[in-house]
Amino acid sequence: MRIAVLGTGMVGRALASRWSELGHEVTMGTRDPEATAQREDHRAWAVENDGVVLATMADAASSAEVVVNALSGQATIAGLESVGAEALGDRILVDIANPLDFSAGFPPTLSVKDTDSLGEQVQRAFPRARVVKTLNTLTASLMTHPRTLADGEHTVFVSGDDADAKVVVTSLLTEMGHRDVIDLGGIETARGTEMYLPLWLRCMGALGTGMFNLRMVR
Amino acid sequence: MRIAVLGTGMVGRALASRWSELGHEVTMGTRDPEATAQREDHRAWAVENDGVVLATMADAASSAEVVVNALSGQATIAGLESVGAEALGDRILVDIANPLDFSAGFPPTLSVKDTDSLGEQVQRAFPRARVVKTLNTLTASLMTHPRTLADGEHTVFVSGDDADAKVVVTSLLTEMGHRDVIDLGGIETARGTEMYLPLWLRCMGALGTGMFNLRMVR
Repeated sequence: MRIAVLGTGMVGRALASRWSELGHEVTMGTRDPEATAQREDHRAWAVENDGVVLATMADAASSAEVVVNALSGQATIAGLESVGAEALGDRILVDIANPLDFSAGFPPTLSVKDTDSLGEQVQRAFPRARVVKTLNTLTASLMTHPRTLADGEHTVFVSGDDADAKVVVTSLLTEMGHRDVIDLGGIETARGTEMYLPLWLRCMGALGTGMFNLRMVR
Repeated sequence: MRIAVLGTGMVGRALASRWSELGHEVTMGTRDPEATAQREDHRAWAVENDGVVLATMADAASSAEVVVNALSGQATIAGLESVGAEALGDRILVDIANPLDFSAGFPPTLSVKDTDSLGEQVQRAFPRARVVKTLNTLTASLMTHPRTLADGEHTVFVSGDDADAKVVVTSLLTEMGHRDVIDLGGIETARGTEMYLPLWLRCMGALGTGMFNLRMVR
């Protein structure tokens, strides 16, 4: 598939790299492709990932079948607005960001919660886009290589109003090695996975690692 | 041990019954023991659980080593205030309530979250009590009989400022069959487990049952 990954941080790189390796046509969207291309850390990464094309966020999105929001939670709405509703169209928009607010230090709080979610904010801002919230409940390396932990015997979730979009996203997850994908329902259910973050953060503190994930045992 | 279970609802009964069966001296605290004793549903339950004594909440608490708050989240602070700081003393106070607010229907929201928790409110209201938050992340029958699901291969959490109190509570959990108890840290970490409830509720909707629990795979 043609996949646009918006954001060049750790999560964006991990996903772009993995999907490229799996044979997808991956474009990475960034505000200023020239500036990103010059950045030393990006150049080192790009050498290993020469299949991934760098483009403006709008160019990346408008040529893709699936657009992935790998921006930070705080940057998400403004970033997507810079892409624009036209470029996003009715594409599948995978939102993996969490609305973390670090303004009062660590652990962060959530800037939206309980009666709303970032997933819903994105869907409301771009009503034609087919938003699927997923992968926001685990660390980047387990998003992309779930089999490295307990051979993939743990759970990820999808939330979204468009059933077909969730099928496509679930197949992208399965291809990366996820064995247990729970469809929680409409985009409203993103409130559940986003509000799990405070528990994830305390577990990371208690376990001393981010290399864990929940399994819904049933 | 001498255990006082405050609250005669489904959760209170399940715990009182289980601990009594395991050989503990269990008193169930209720606002009006006479009235509770007359209630038809309670009488049916009491026949099967004749080892459990009914008492006022203050009497139950003041003769116990461990006090368990099995009141609803909304009733918790007022209920504990009716017990009083003197009766609670420096006892271990196990808080298993969630601050669920059903005023806008289902699914409920949380009346406290993110920058505070019910566990912390209880600790602040009764500074001498040794509050341990636990068991608020799973359904009553799995609290008491975890081995009925995947032979107990799933996780519960403890949060609290008093290390000795967490040791006692962990041994009560282990005795019921819990195999994996994660100590998250101080009572502040109750924010994590309480904010997990919105995900639990959506999973219950998606799975069509409350007979599930997370396992922290690591």
